[in-house]
Amino acid sequence: MYRIPILQMGSFLLVTIQVDMQDQTALALQDDLANKISNSGARGVLIDISALEIVDSFVGRMLAGISGIARIMDATTVVVGMQPAVAITLVELGLSLQGVRTALNVEKGMDLLRLSGGENAFGRR
Amino acid sequence: MYRIPILQMGSFLLVTIQVDMQDQTALALQDDLANKISNSGARGVLIDISALEIVDSFVGRMLAGISGIARIMDATTVVVGMQPAVAITLVELGLSLQGVRTALNVEKGMDLLRLSGGENAFGRR
Repeated sequence: MYRIPILQMGSFLLVTIQVDMQDQTALALQDDLANKISNSGARGVLIDISALEIVDSFVGRMLAGISGIARIMDATTVVVGMQPAVAITLVELGLSLQGVRTALNVEKGMDLLRLSGGENAFGRR
Repeated sequence: MYRIPILQMGSFLLVTIQVDMQDQTALALQDDLANKISNSGARGVLIDISALEIVDSFVGRMLAGISGIARIMDATTVVVGMQPAVAITLVELGLSLQGVRTALNVEKGMDLLRLSGGENAFGRR
């Protein structure tokens, strides 16, 4: 089965989503991320979706799910690189990505994670 | 056509290769990387291949090609995350990834790029 690699950079984890997600892949990613957060003690998760041209309710739920799992494990999730057209479509569809933090690109996402720092200031959103 | 996203982090670019490369995708990646190096002034390129279970001569040539292009543009390329089985197979096949620098994971690759610093000490390998 296809597994999305998770890269560790210091206290952050980085996931680049490049292909349309299937159920199995999404579940495996949630599993792998939870394990990786537990093993590495990571405080932040960056999910890059710049390659996605469509974000439907399934992907939205998956992002919210990962965000929720990470939050329970005391890590902050930031979704980065969303294409403008995707943002427009999300709003038109009424999908608000509740509880998911976003940033324009990886660098801004990292800044956000560094700012949230040890207090995990966004943990209660 | 499927394009592999290139993430910028400071003066480094990060590419995560997750699927078996086709000719078109490989060519597009070389193009995109050359443009991105030119636009961003990046000094280092990290290519993560931890998701690849097979690295054949085509992928080997592609990595060497990217490395060569980056070198001409004064950037150092480091291939990271190679699976042990891939390394074994490469040697058995007699593919030595000539001119391609490697590191165990993204973090060590970044350290290597930082060490190579402004002088691009590895540029002449």
